[in-house]
Amino acid sequence: MSADFGARRGALRELLTQDGLDSILITDLLNVRYLTGFTGSNAALLVSTGGDERTVICTDGRYVTQVAEQVPDLRAEIDRASALHLLGAGISGRGTRVGFESHVVTVDAHRAWAQLDGGLELVRAPGVVESLRMVKDEYEVGVLRDACRAADDALAELLSGGGIRAGRTEREVARELESLMLDHGADAVSFETIVAAGVNSAVPHHRPTDAVLAEGDFVKLDFGALVDGYHSDMTRTFVIGEPAQWQRELYELVQRSQAAGREALAPGIETASVDAASRSVIEEAGYGEYFLHGLGHGVGLEIHEAPGIAKSSTGTLLSGAAVTVEPGVYFSGRGGVRIEDTLVVRDEGPELLTLTSKELTSV
Amino acid sequence: MSADFGARRGALRELLTQDGLDSILITDLLNVRYLTGFTGSNAALLVSTGGDERTVICTDGRYVTQVAEQVPDLRAEIDRASALHLLGAGISGRGTRVGFESHVVTVDAHRAWAQLDGGLELVRAPGVVESLRMVKDEYEVGVLRDACRAADDALAELLSGGGIRAGRTEREVARELESLMLDHGADAVSFETIVAAGVNSAVPHHRPTDAVLAEGDFVKLDFGALVDGYHSDMTRTFVIGEPAQWQRELYELVQRSQAAGREALAPGIETASVDAASRSVIEEAGYGEYFLHGLGHGVGLEIHEAPGIAKSSTGTLLSGAAVTVEPGVYFSGRGGVRIEDTLVVRDEGPELLTLTSKELTSV
Repeated sequence: MSADFGARRGALRELLTQDGLDSILITDLLNVRYLTGFTGSNAALLVSTGGDERTVICTDGRYVTQVAEQVPDLRAEIDRASALHLLGAGISGRGTRVGFESHVVTVDAHRAWAQLDGGLELVRAPGVVESLRMVKDEYEVGVLRDACRAADDALAELLSGGGIRAGRTEREVARELESLMLDHGADAVSFETIVAAGVNSAVPHHRPTDAVLAEGDFVKLDFGALVDGYHSDMTRTFVIGEPAQWQRELYELVQRSQAAGREALAPGIETASVDAASRSVIEEAGYGEYFLHGLGHGVGLEIHEAPGIAKSSTGTLLSGAAVTVEPGVYFSGRGGVRIEDTLVVRDEGPELLTLTSKELTSV
Repeated sequence: MSADFGARRGALRELLTQDGLDSILITDLLNVRYLTGFTGSNAALLVSTGGDERTVICTDGRYVTQVAEQVPDLRAEIDRASALHLLGAGISGRGTRVGFESHVVTVDAHRAWAQLDGGLELVRAPGVVESLRMVKDEYEVGVLRDACRAADDALAELLSGGGIRAGRTEREVARELESLMLDHGADAVSFETIVAAGVNSAVPHHRPTDAVLAEGDFVKLDFGALVDGYHSDMTRTFVIGEPAQWQRELYELVQRSQAAGREALAPGIETASVDAASRSVIEEAGYGEYFLHGLGHGVGLEIHEAPGIAKSSTGTLLSGAAVTVEPGVYFSGRGGVRIEDTLVVRDEGPELLTLTSKELTSV
């Protein structure tokens, strides 16, 4: 299955027409990639409501071959100052309204564009492509599924090989897990792997150290695989040896909270309500103050993207959104538990992409 | 040796005074790190000409402990909208001129700030901290030296273990080299390692594939280690087995060009002249059109930073600048050679940080 970039540009044109724009200048490189498949490090794209025949991508001389291969369906221009070139090339006629990504364009870039005498009206148009990216198409879900599978398979091999054991350091476990993700098809890791053992498990975003894993420790792993530009994200927390009673209780609480969050995922529901569904389980147990962060976030071409799922989030979930659900409870100086999945919101109920068991597991 | 952040803020204040600014709002996270040591993912810093007692850092609730540890010498405020908070907090009095980093601040962020009724005059001040960062202090050179050593040591171990040999894939070599950098003290890799064998060596920024190394191939490795936030950068090109005559000649040409570039590094020289010193060697041999890129770039907290060293560069080198010198000649469909070092510009002649031999080496 391959990505249908033409369909994505078509969806963008509908939004442009609604906003009264004649075209939009895309300069965020992930948005250029989303709309064209181009993966070079310098590009701009002018999408016209007049269709693909009036839509032009621009990049520099390093990418002449690459842009022809990756974007055979659009006219390509070559200029190092790609955005300035597209605005100055007379592609959009005088007096037309050209949207620009004001949430990523710098003050200095905008100033240079505004000084062009092209007779264009530059209009702030923040987050337009990001709003499309929130809903994944089936190609994207397929790639996310592959990314999540690479992470699942890597963890399975780590566990079956006894990779999480007393005596190893956090850093050693992290390196083995990252290496296994590459073995299982990841192009790279999604983000710096978190391995947090013992008291370190109480630090939500702990960086692996030379701390040695010991009997009785919680060991929290938060990691992901990157496949074709898409990020997976999963957290599992294990216990080395026999879990103590407090560990069982804490784990079971986070497990129930996470299940409630997953079950709340549905098209049309407010993201703040999803957070509340999960958080209330922890609050009712009296541990609300130890759940230190939001419940989740969108994943895709970025590891953190729209929609956010937190107390203060606004907006509702759409069918096809790919999100994480990751409650955690952290007892400083003692230990913490987080359980996280990546899922796709569906009309018929959420589709789980990270399939590793969430039962309390002794290693 | 530790970084003297106070001295860096002092140097910044001198520039502010020259520019008629009362303070500057720093929102680029690397610049915040450079000026304070803070490494969190959300922060803003308002540096006042009134001294450290009137200089304030702001970050969010995740970093309460971290900011106190990393920045004990400045007042810290906690607010998720850090920049907006600092501008609105009345730290700078009405009517004062506050510079902002217009080369990184987005149109939307600037718009939100301008709507604050703080009576402040927001003044474009692009690249001020970057101009300081161009000249490395001795602490920074020390860390760069460590980063370059990790890369040198990793390559030495790769070579001594026969890691570059016919039958292995580019990807396997890249993974081993990256793993060895971590073994030798790198916190991470500086950038995605390039391993390009045979015809792929003619692609300047080739990504490692499953292509198999073969007898007679050029094998080009471009890689670096990250230590304490600082990036090393080095390229070496080897031949598997006995070099052919054309390979010897090509290698020797690039070697002479690279030496000429290195020897041209001196305080006060125009960066375009350094490029010319190296490029002219290749042009005189009749291969100018196969040298497809600029000669080099600054390295430090970013893998590519000021100063650029290319045909079209402007400005002169300063003593203490850390730069790469990396000419290359690429024969499409046949093979290419690039040789790159990281060096520090010094009054007494450039200091070489990447110490691996540049003699033509058969592996």
